[in-house]
Amino acid sequence: MTRLPDIAAIEAMDAADPFRDFRDRFLLPHGVIYLDGNSLGAASAAAVMELQQATHEEWAQGLIRSWNTADWWEMPIALGDRIGKLTGAVPGQTVVCDSVSINLYKVLHAAMALRPLRSVLVAEASSFASDLYIAQSVASSRPGASLRLEGVDAPALEDLLDRKTAAVLINHINYKTGELLDMAALTRKIHAAGAIAVWDLSHSAGAVPVELDAAGADFAVGCTYKYLNGGPGAPGFIFAAQRHLADLRQPLIGWWGHARPFAFEPTFEAASGIRRFLCGTQPVLSMRALKGALDIWDSVDIAALRRKCIAMTDLFIQLVEAKCGDYGVVLASPRDGAKRGSQVSFTHAHGYAIMQALIERGVIGDFRAPTTIRFGFAPLYISYRDVWQSVAVLEEILRMGVWQHSRFNRRAAVT
Amino acid sequence: MTRLPDIAAIEAMDAADPFRDFRDRFLLPHGVIYLDGNSLGAASAAAVMELQQATHEEWAQGLIRSWNTADWWEMPIALGDRIGKLTGAVPGQTVVCDSVSINLYKVLHAAMALRPLRSVLVAEASSFASDLYIAQSVASSRPGASLRLEGVDAPALEDLLDRKTAAVLINHINYKTGELLDMAALTRKIHAAGAIAVWDLSHSAGAVPVELDAAGADFAVGCTYKYLNGGPGAPGFIFAAQRHLADLRQPLIGWWGHARPFAFEPTFEAASGIRRFLCGTQPVLSMRALKGALDIWDSVDIAALRRKCIAMTDLFIQLVEAKCGDYGVVLASPRDGAKRGSQVSFTHAHGYAIMQALIERGVIGDFRAPTTIRFGFAPLYISYRDVWQSVAVLEEILRMGVWQHSRFNRRAAVT
Repeated sequence: MTRLPDIAAIEAMDAADPFRDFRDRFLLPHGVIYLDGNSLGAASAAAVMELQQATHEEWAQGLIRSWNTADWWEMPIALGDRIGKLTGAVPGQTVVCDSVSINLYKVLHAAMALRPLRSVLVAEASSFASDLYIAQSVASSRPGASLRLEGVDAPALEDLLDRKTAAVLINHINYKTGELLDMAALTRKIHAAGAIAVWDLSHSAGAVPVELDAAGADFAVGCTYKYLNGGPGAPGFIFAAQRHLADLRQPLIGWWGHARPFAFEPTFEAASGIRRFLCGTQPVLSMRALKGALDIWDSVDIAALRRKCIAMTDLFIQLVEAKCGDYGVVLASPRDGAKRGSQVSFTHAHGYAIMQALIERGVIGDFRAPTTIRFGFAPLYISYRDVWQSVAVLEEILRMGVWQHSRFNRRAAVT
Repeated sequence: MTRLPDIAAIEAMDAADPFRDFRDRFLLPHGVIYLDGNSLGAASAAAVMELQQATHEEWAQGLIRSWNTADWWEMPIALGDRIGKLTGAVPGQTVVCDSVSINLYKVLHAAMALRPLRSVLVAEASSFASDLYIAQSVASSRPGASLRLEGVDAPALEDLLDRKTAAVLINHINYKTGELLDMAALTRKIHAAGAIAVWDLSHSAGAVPVELDAAGADFAVGCTYKYLNGGPGAPGFIFAAQRHLADLRQPLIGWWGHARPFAFEPTFEAASGIRRFLCGTQPVLSMRALKGALDIWDSVDIAALRRKCIAMTDLFIQLVEAKCGDYGVVLASPRDGAKRGSQVSFTHAHGYAIMQALIERGVIGDFRAPTTIRFGFAPLYISYRDVWQSVAVLEEILRMGVWQHSRFNRRAAVT
């Protein structure tokens, strides 16, 4: 183990941080260290400005005309291409719309339809729960189809890949542990079995380098309100590889996915390309906040971002284990930075009470039942000093044994 | 025909208008008469204020904590009940979420599932096109099921009601003609055939009295960005009658519809009640604008609103026919105010060019191919003087024969 850095070393890390000036673009509350950007990203001045323009100028003054003059209609495609740039997808393959779960429903149906003679959908039992519910729904809607789970039906994904496997859904980064999977290697294995690879990028877009085209991914869905900072409930996105676009079929066929939406023809004819994943009218105001948030990403070097993410999470683990290891916190994330996203989880028998105490002292992470405390490190607005300081607060809480205070012994909803 | 009112009579009507003070609550552009509130409602100061609070205080300062402290999580239900109040539904039957088309997909699946031994879905051929695409998708996903259309497969809806009919989808107000149907009478006929009645309220919520409970409606979907003024792309809503809630099943089963969403259980168990129509995370910012918009509706007397709607549209028809009748405009809406929503459509061979000329002169209505010009009269912010003035501009345009000017002879996208 390397020597524990002192505060001077921490300050030197911040001084050398290529993202040190990015923090000023965000509107963070005073007295708070925000380690939950993996759940809801911070607001930026750019997002707020776009939203104000969309509201005061485009909606209030432009009214219906803004669908054309402010290009509201094209936003799902325009924003999609910008997210494509951040996830290694050439233009024309990504669209922003609806919610992650709804998008996953469309994508899993599309994936299964590309393998009509195969009947098995595969996913990880450790997937984000909503992904599993949607996968169950898609599998149960197709006669004879079934869902099989890594971790339940077989210990390893490879054991579930055979000639019956139509599609495989994988969470690129596990929401609970932060484990990062090898997209290229797993996609190769899935393709070797003749199946379709579907990736959920909710915890990886904006956190780690994602190379959808290079990895040969077939489909992906993802979230824009976490590391991309699009705002609460900002719409999700869908990626579909160019080679599949012509054959895409999905059941949520609304007018926004029609070849000629304003002809109001009685029968459906799918638009060409990625647009056919669109269904109904999109939430323009939420989209405009996302547009502002994405402006910041234009000047982000993703390789440098990844280096900072690993350095911060390595530092956090090192400090927590050194200062808090005696109090029963156990690392629940991969120790190897290369296999970890931008978040670190620990377990503790009194995790819920500990997280409540942290939040009360201005260190905001989150809790996942039954015992996981989770800390996200958004490299654009978290400093090494934040990492240092958050561990100091955690150490104090553990030393005091906060869970003995009855006020934290109730269970409440934690988002 | 009654005598044509003069400007003094118009001014007297405005002076007696119980909604004359409501206009000040909206942020309308100067020099514009906005007759497209049936497509995108106007921005209100209340909506803008809510959005600012949601952005600056709740997102930027509250961050993840606002899911609880600002009740973001409960908004779909809270806003749903407020829309229920406007549409004659007691609390617990309405939820705000997603888009109208996606909601219709859920509702039609739920309706068909309630009649498993019946195979026919019925709709009007004149439905909003996206409704038809979704109906086609739902019908085609069920083995042996089919979609039959009033206006194609039979001239009258009654001819399509038999023991095979599982559900009937009806547009309460036709988007193109403004024709208003009798919800109670049609629902009775549908129920007499043992089928489920599904209403699309997109053009009626906020425009005419809607009495879902009294009419015995089974399900409804609707839009909040038209007469309800929720903002561009504001989320849709779903109504489901209390008697169906316990048996509801729909395929978009995401974590927001789970009985215990934060337990992250591997298998789906539907929440009780209307919440089971929720799927993924909702667009909070768009929802908050809608929340502000709905504040205005708390003090609206819907019966008075309806009287103004009929008076304005009657006046518009009377003035257009008297002043513009010689120029080839033909009424395409019902002449009887009781059978008409808050919009009036005319056809004209050069409808597209005429509407472009109107918009250029600050009278904003819209165009629906091939020849329909459509004018919506939102009673909260349109005055009788606006009606008078818009007809004066239309008359001038028709007298000048604007369609002879080449610049209007191109076809462009009109939203």
